[in-house]
Amino acid sequence: MQKLELNEDRFFDAEPSIRKNAREIYSSICNLPIISPHGHVDPNLFVENKPFTNPTELFLIPDHYVFRMFYSQGIPLENLGIPTADGSPVETDPRKIWQIFAENFYLFRGTPSGVWLDYEFNKVFGIEEKLVGGNAQKIYDELNEKLHTKEFLPRNLFDSFNIKVLTTTDTATDPLEAHRKIRESGWQGNVIPSFRPDSVTDLNNPSWNENIKILGKLTEKEITGYKQYIAALENRREYFKSLGATSTDHGLEIPYMARITEQEAEKIFQKALAGKSDAADAKIFTAHMIMEMGRMSCEDGLVMMVHAGCLRNHNKYILKKFGPDKGADIPVQAEYVRNMQEFLNAYGNDPRMTVIVFTLDESVYSRELAPFAGHYPAMKLGPAWWFHDSIEGMTRYRQLMTETGGFYNTVGFIDDTRAFVSIPARHDVARRIDSNFLGNLVARHIISMDEALKIAYELTNGLVKKSFKFNI
Amino acid sequence: MQKLELNEDRFFDAEPSIRKNAREIYSSICNLPIISPHGHVDPNLFVENKPFTNPTELFLIPDHYVFRMFYSQGIPLENLGIPTADGSPVETDPRKIWQIFAENFYLFRGTPSGVWLDYEFNKVFGIEEKLVGGNAQKIYDELNEKLHTKEFLPRNLFDSFNIKVLTTTDTATDPLEAHRKIRESGWQGNVIPSFRPDSVTDLNNPSWNENIKILGKLTEKEITGYKQYIAALENRREYFKSLGATSTDHGLEIPYMARITEQEAEKIFQKALAGKSDAADAKIFTAHMIMEMGRMSCEDGLVMMVHAGCLRNHNKYILKKFGPDKGADIPVQAEYVRNMQEFLNAYGNDPRMTVIVFTLDESVYSRELAPFAGHYPAMKLGPAWWFHDSIEGMTRYRQLMTETGGFYNTVGFIDDTRAFVSIPARHDVARRIDSNFLGNLVARHIISMDEALKIAYELTNGLVKKSFKFNI
Amino acid sequence: MQKLELNEDRFFDAEPSIRKNAREIYSSICNLPIISPHGHVDPNLFVENKPFTNPTELFLIPDHYVFRMFYSQGIPLENLGIPTADGSPVETDPRKIWQIFAENFYLFRGTPSGVWLDYEFNKVFGIEEKLVGGNAQKIYDELNEKLHTKEFLPRNLFDSFNIKVLTTTDTATDPLEAHRKIRESGWQGNVIPSFRPDSVTDLNNPSWNENIKILGKLTEKEITGYKQYIAALENRREYFKSLGATSTDHGLEIPYMARITEQEAEKIFQKALAGKSDAADAKIFTAHMIMEMGRMSCEDGLVMMVHAGCLRNHNKYILKKFGPDKGADIPVQAEYVRNMQEFLNAYGNDPRMTVIVFTLDESVYSRELAPFAGHYPAMKLGPAWWFHDSIEGMTRYRQLMTETGGFYNTVGFIDDTRAFVSIPARHDVARRIDSNFLGNLVARHIISMDEALKIAYELTNGLVKKSFKFNI
Repeated sequence: MQKLELNEDRFFDAEPSIRKNAREIYSSICNLPIISPHGHVDPNLFVENKPFTNPTELFLIPDHYVFRMFYSQGIPLENLGIPTADGSPVETDPRKIWQIFAENFYLFRGTPSGVWLDYEFNKVFGIEEKLVGGNAQKIYDELNEKLHTKEFLPRNLFDSFNIKVLTTTDTATDPLEAHRKIRESGWQGNVIPSFRPDSVTDLNNPSWNENIKILGKLTEKEITGYKQYIAALENRREYFKSLGATSTDHGLEIPYMARITEQEAEKIFQKALAGKSDAADAKIFTAHMIMEMGRMSCEDGLVMMVHAGCLRNHNKYILKKFGPDKGADIPVQAEYVRNMQEFLNAYGNDPRMTVIVFTLDESVYSRELAPFAGHYPAMKLGPAWWFHDSIEGMTRYRQLMTETGGFYNTVGFIDDTRAFVSIPARHDVARRIDSNFLGNLVARHIISMDEALKIAYELTNGLVKKSFKFNI
Repeated sequence: MQKLELNEDRFFDAEPSIRKNAREIYSSICNLPIISPHGHVDPNLFVENKPFTNPTELFLIPDHYVFRMFYSQGIPLENLGIPTADGSPVETDPRKIWQIFAENFYLFRGTPSGVWLDYEFNKVFGIEEKLVGGNAQKIYDELNEKLHTKEFLPRNLFDSFNIKVLTTTDTATDPLEAHRKIRESGWQGNVIPSFRPDSVTDLNNPSWNENIKILGKLTEKEITGYKQYIAALENRREYFKSLGATSTDHGLEIPYMARITEQEAEKIFQKALAGKSDAADAKIFTAHMIMEMGRMSCEDGLVMMVHAGCLRNHNKYILKKFGPDKGADIPVQAEYVRNMQEFLNAYGNDPRMTVIVFTLDESVYSRELAPFAGHYPAMKLGPAWWFHDSIEGMTRYRQLMTETGGFYNTVGFIDDTRAFVSIPARHDVARRIDSNFLGNLVARHIISMDEALKIAYELTNGLVKKSFKFNI
Repeated sequence: MQKLELNEDRFFDAEPSIRKNAREIYSSICNLPIISPHGHVDPNLFVENKPFTNPTELFLIPDHYVFRMFYSQGIPLENLGIPTADGSPVETDPRKIWQIFAENFYLFRGTPSGVWLDYEFNKVFGIEEKLVGGNAQKIYDELNEKLHTKEFLPRNLFDSFNIKVLTTTDTATDPLEAHRKIRESGWQGNVIPSFRPDSVTDLNNPSWNENIKILGKLTEKEITGYKQYIAALENRREYFKSLGATSTDHGLEIPYMARITEQEAEKIFQKALAGKSDAADAKIFTAHMIMEMGRMSCEDGLVMMVHAGCLRNHNKYILKKFGPDKGADIPVQAEYVRNMQEFLNAYGNDPRMTVIVFTLDESVYSRELAPFAGHYPAMKLGPAWWFHDSIEGMTRYRQLMTETGGFYNTVGFIDDTRAFVSIPARHDVARRIDSNFLGNLVARHIISMDEALKIAYELTNGLVKKSFKFNI
């Protein structure tokens, strides 16, 4: 068996002077707390604080980054135990699934999923062999045993991971029971919600009418018109804030933003209530509601995150059989300059506003987003996101963004993960890549080591606190 | 004169530990056989097995990569002996042309053409001086002499190049006489066709009607309707398979793919037969025929290659005077996510299908193609193609593709060349760049050396065999 | 205080063999004269030859690269003394503004503005401390004192910078008084104009009618029709040539180029004269006038520069309050292949033509511009422009352009600056990055050192002289 060892210099440039600089910078930030301003961890983990079921349920089933790679090589999702939407049967033996996982683990060579999983196995669970078919069941046993010890309960991991803030993503219609219970439990872990209203602002959402009804119930006022709808959203934002929220989150295929009159909005809203709105209505209504979200943010101080450039559920077979979030979301070209002009003209100069933009279309990093961030005071650049949350992806991000946008118009690392146990792995990679990038600048005499150390702190803790208004 | 020496460490990173790794990896693959699953070598070379005429005819005249660079610097194609379409006279003295070639050879500094030609001169022909004006005629003599020895006959070069498969590209209306004769000759060289139906599926092709008539003759049934047309294509595919074909090849300006009904197809087909189809008809008919090719591939097992994103014959003066393929094909932006959705929904989950996609638009590598390949089981990524078949181009390809798509969803190197003698040069560059890329991953502790060696084999021989279904 | 020292090896790769090569190459070009074929320095500097007012007026007020970064961090332009268009008051104390500049100077870490300013402070003005809040006033004093010595008069700086050509950018309606006076003064500095007709060819320009009247006055013939307009432009081009111009410059949002008939042109021209033309008229008229500029260039020999891909004045609040050129020009996606086809078919094969194209959309470097330059004799590639005139930006440019387009289809470095004192800083960075790029090619045995030295000369002086027809 091959040993699983994480080299202390991993991901650093091979050139000795860069590596030496990277080490020095990394050592100054590696023990800083984790601040996670955006992600998809289930807050119920910390209410219930129950052990994770088994290694397969922990590492594979919920992580579409992982199982999409197996699917791409022809392994049916049924064999991996991914639950079907239509209830048709799938493999239920976690050990059989784990065996497939182990035998195909080589597919992750050179990928971030491979890097994260190796970290989790070794640094979190103390596994000392590379996972292969031959040791699959032995490693399953080792993992499973640890999972059922007290040390590996979610709250204890939260503490040992040194997490200072963990932000979840919650729909506008979420009653936030879990967050309320966490607060009431007396546990000191700082788990906060963020406000994601897509399901009530996107008229294409098949449950939109139902969601509006829930929104009405939660705000104790039936919603029969646009004004009540706006009031309900404002009301929910206040409730989110009362449970610690400092931000909102918006997922868009295209970052189109444009205001319509209240009369027009009311008209489309009524059409939608009657189930008669069409795609054109949905497009302009979403564009308008982003403007409204901008207005509300100026008023209530919630920071906006805009995730754009993704066509969801490209594979209809998978959507129908397994539902959404199964690895078939594919990035598309995104245009920001014209699409965001009205928004930035309305709110981009407003000192009360912070809008953080992410993309999956790297061609806009240096062309559109860095120039935006280097000009508009309200605009900040989100980090290398999703597929680009990787060694090369983060390096390209820094190379393409820094010279035009500047380090100080970025917001630090964001893990954006559903996989709680992967959080320290992901932050560690980000800290190493930033250290290496800065170490390379020092080696080329572009900045001094003293400057590099200051920037490294900002990229790790300083900017995220400031941008997301965390008073910690 | 400057010596022409190919350094043993050429193209490897200067950093000593990366270079050391790259050497070790390269030494494990440099002697593996060449498997060429796509290219444009004329199969008649191996039927006739006659000596190449002279150095000018071998290196310059057929290679638009080469003469386009001279043209870009103001040297008329007439002076380079490129045959005209209208029969107007051009330079016919190969020595005069060679002199121009030599005097302007410095233009290739830092380009892949320069790298390949140096390899061919030195490694294939044993030339030991850099080509310049001063030694042009001497080197011409040296090359010419060798060309007329037995060792340099095409079949002997095929063997000394250690080629295990050489795939040609053949139109649907090619009777494949050359391939039949090669098989009948008893020579053991494995030269196989691939099926390229563009000239009978693209209604914009000025010879489309004529091609349909030839198609009918070849399949011994006059084609008067859509059903016969489809049957003829299926018939031809079977014939290609009988001569060893394992793949089809499709060149598209835009990778738009969409099915129409048989009635609609018949209607457009009849319009086209009557010479009355228009650009809109051609667009949807091509889109439909790619879907049909997908269906046929599922049924007969031929692997599909889709080369998209190129506007052919941009320079109308050159087209009119010299014809197509004269260095004036220019890449255009390509959109795959929406354009290929119907195709991938129809065939992307089908275990019988393999579709290999190439592009010239690097902005889609990490945005569209790597996510596709990391999800759809039928989709594989072609290598860095054409202008990107170069040291930096291949490096960017690996950097942009690997982390999202994974090494195992790629298909190895494809030389795609008309220039037979350049084949070993091109494969050598690819092997060096892959070795260097892997050596860098090892140096940064992202993969182990053991893993690197396994991946290197896959990138050189393993994946190409599997993807193209070569049973060798 | 931190010392301000510019390391002799700055910007070179850390790897010792590359660095060694880079040093050798750089030492061969670092003292070559500066040839600046395009920029925005005010020629009146050299007519009047008066001292610069003070450090704030020199380094901050005119440089939107610099103050946009402060604005992006929420510092109002009023506080920085940027003059308003509406005359509302702004900070007038240069020392107060300088204090803000110094306290926020850390924002430029890792940016080209930071690199240039450090060079200017240290190499031009002999400052030996990093600028921070604590030494702001002391450094202000040091700079201010020097500014008022004879050595720092514009003409003396011109000489000490070793500038051989300095090209300004002048509207078609500029009487070129400054240039005439420079010539008449007997001073030997070679300051020449270039012809920028945008303000008389773009019907969207709010002053277009007024500009046409000025054009008529300057050419001593009232312009009442299209033919007179064309004649006036030809007349002005001749006048520019008589004062040394060798080039024209054209700024386009989209590089669309297409000819209309003279009748159509006349019709639109009359509509515009009557103040009745619309956006569609403007679009096609601009496209047509670029074709006309192509025709004139073939006839009078002026080299064309086409700067495309920028949406000007994105921030309407800033435009209204402070006017244009305030850091709010944002790049947009640019398509060249289809947009330039008619132009390149008309003039791209013409031996009398040189057209130099720049872009801010890096995704077109390898996809569109390098293939163009590697084919059309008239087409040359401008250097990494504007936001990409930076260490990483120039490196990417060489990596993306060289293999397909070749070194010899580029035109050397262009500083494009308004900031006269930054010229040597910018050329120094470009020379270092080119030296490093070439040094890396040598280290990887892609070119020899002898070849690298020849290319380095071309990139610094040879190609710019040839492309811009400078007989120096």
